[in-house]
Amino acid sequence: MLVLSSPSGAGKSTISRALLEKHPDLTMSVSATTRPMRPGEVEGKDYYFIDNAKFEDMVADGDFLEHAQVFDNYYGTPRPPVVKALEQGKDVLFDVDWQGTQQLRQNARDDLVSIFILPPSVEELERRLYTRGQDPEDVVKKRMAKATSEMSHWAEYDYIIINEAIEHSVRETEAILSAERLKLMRRVGMSEWLRGMGVGQ
Amino acid sequence: MLVLSSPSGAGKSTISRALLEKHPDLTMSVSATTRPMRPGEVEGKDYYFIDNAKFEDMVADGDFLEHAQVFDNYYGTPRPPVVKALEQGKDVLFDVDWQGTQQLRQNARDDLVSIFILPPSVEELERRLYTRGQDPEDVVKKRMAKATSEMSHWAEYDYIIINEAIEHSVRETEAILSAERLKLMRRVGMSEWLRGMGVGQ
Repeated sequence: MLVLSSPSGAGKSTISRALLEKHPDLTMSVSATTRPMRPGEVEGKDYYFIDNAKFEDMVADGDFLEHAQVFDNYYGTPRPPVVKALEQGKDVLFDVDWQGTQQLRQNARDDLVSIFILPPSVEELERRLYTRGQDPEDVVKKRMAKATSEMSHWAEYDYIIINEAIEHSVRETEAILSAERLKLMRRVGMSEWLRGMGVGQ
Repeated sequence: MLVLSSPSGAGKSTISRALLEKHPDLTMSVSATTRPMRPGEVEGKDYYFIDNAKFEDMVADGDFLEHAQVFDNYYGTPRPPVVKALEQGKDVLFDVDWQGTQQLRQNARDDLVSIFILPPSVEELERRLYTRGQDPEDVVKKRMAKATSEMSHWAEYDYIIINEAIEHSVRETEAILSAERLKLMRRVGMSEWLRGMGVGQ
């Protein structure tokens, strides 16, 4: 379970897309939401679109690895597809904020790897948030405040990537993924293998 | 501090050499020894060659990060060059066995990353140990016993690499090195940087 968190404008989506394209053994977790489907969105790809009653049932049944309310809408990560992917030997990528990461960590115990992606500087972040949609200054200010609030949780993550250049950040994320797969505790089947070597434990 | 350990014949030296060639920010720790210099060896490159009295003084002064006696000779990792390299922002590579790794870990606390390199199979290890010097079978048997004894400590390491192909193992070691440098606790200076972002801790 690999979590990427970042403030808006730090480049997380671009990094995620590049990772998923290059690594077929990595799969994106799809969230469920009660908000209405927007034009162009695809059920089961962008989100699982469900109603409030269904969402509340799933919460009650413990069917979410994490969930949150944002204004009037609910968002959550359904447990079954994640468990299935992990059982198939895939790694699962999550795009959640610091609160989602905390909930995932409680559910995943040792098997969660968390990366926080930071913009290269405040100036660059401001520039990116401005460029996004030519919005008025007060809207950008609000976005900056939200980004700063999200960034204040950087120290709760395992790894920190400063996204100066996408290509480089993608390589860094790949290095983390490779290294984590080589960790002792993830060497599934090692015991069997080593028993064959006469040094099993 | 990066430790590579492996049984003889698993390919550790080749991986170390390749790493050092490609990464000027990585430096090899040079051991001190009381054994006589062999033809072709260079003082300060292969070993620091010192006498028994000097070695015992250094042990008494706590000047070794780890040391051991092998038959009649002493071997040890002098502390000052390692501290100096780390202070210069370099990473230091150590070629020590499981006992040396345990001692280093006590001295380095959180700052040690340990990798155990395994041969792809018992058969392949036997083949490599045979090929080495066309030795008689009982010598190879002894080497195999020593290798098996060393391998029994694999579970004390952070990462496990199975060396099927040198190129691939070098890339895996590089991924570990990159990832470890991105770890939160190694982000030296991050606090300063984040205070500038208004989210310092």
